[in-house]
Amino acid sequence: MNLKGLRVMGIDPGLTRCGLSVVEAGHGRAVIPISVGIVRTPATAELPERLLRLSTGVNQWMDDYRPDVVAVERVFERGNVSTVIHTAHASGVLVLAAAQRGIPVHMYTPSEVKKAVSGNGRADKKQMTAMITRILGLAEPPQPADAADALALAVCHCWRAPLLARTAALLNSEGTKK
Amino acid sequence: MNLKGLRVMGIDPGLTRCGLSVVEAGHGRAVIPISVGIVRTPATAELPERLLRLSTGVNQWMDDYRPDVVAVERVFERGNVSTVIHTAHASGVLVLAAAQRGIPVHMYTPSEVKKAVSGNGRADKKQMTAMITRILGLAEPPQPADAADALALAVCHCWRAPLLARTAALLNSEGTKK
Repeated sequence: MNLKGLRVMGIDPGLTRCGLSVVEAGHGRAVIPISVGIVRTPATAELPERLLRLSTGVNQWMDDYRPDVVAVERVFERGNVSTVIHTAHASGVLVLAAAQRGIPVHMYTPSEVKKAVSGNGRADKKQMTAMITRILGLAEPPQPADAADALALAVCHCWRAPLLARTAALLNSEGTKK
Repeated sequence: MNLKGLRVMGIDPGLTRCGLSVVEAGHGRAVIPISVGIVRTPATAELPERLLRLSTGVNQWMDDYRPDVVAVERVFERGNVSTVIHTAHASGVLVLAAAQRGIPVHMYTPSEVKKAVSGNGRADKKQMTAMITRILGLAEPPQPADAADALALAVCHCWRAPLLARTAALLNSEGTKK
């Protein structure tokens, strides 16, 4: 299963800071970094204004980089519930942007990303940053620092995609047999 | 403060069932029902597909009824966290639809709506349905039954809007004095 050239956008959803990245799958497990950044919305603004800015920001990235697929962190039931609700509002808008363009969306939990990238589902931020820096062959850790999660999501998808594709093909052939 | 003719859309956010209503403010506390309904998305579909359907549905309502303002139930930290996350995804997409059209959005908690409509912040579903039926002068309870919440949100806004407008005017004049 050759995915070379597959362009993946990683999205770490957030209302105050949303991490975005774009990578391209290379030969084998090689992953080429294309871009990384943050879309911010002011905490002083009302929710509708913030969601509008976030939507405009991610759509601009999608226009600029034309990803083939989007990998988004699944909103998880942990920590402060009110933060979770804010993140879920943001995530709805981000996933919608991809759906409106017909771009497939894959969702990964934080521990799936950690496991895929570092082999350890409980890797800490420092370990993850070190792994991402090494995998992408960067001279120094990715900037801004908290956009490293968005890169990790994209790398995770590059490495999981061949397996997902094989599973889908298998399920399809099972379906045909019936 | 005369709000006669103000067209309010009430939205009770949900991913599986989203309640929508449109009413118009009449003389004094009179509220005229215009429409009520539900946008459903299949629980078997993936999240991106569901959010896309929901967005298309609410945008269709906004095209059809051209509301001046939208009243949305605020997603609240109660019950099952995974349901709350789904509802918050949906809410993000619904609020975005209004923001993209420049329609002002007001958010109310369930108890604010109950208090405004029935005088009791803990009114049950039966009491709320009876109140909404009476306020809107309906011959029988609104159909579908669970869209009554969307009507209650719209009525709540009609009755709160004059107070909100006076408060805003007051804050504005305070600001001018400085």
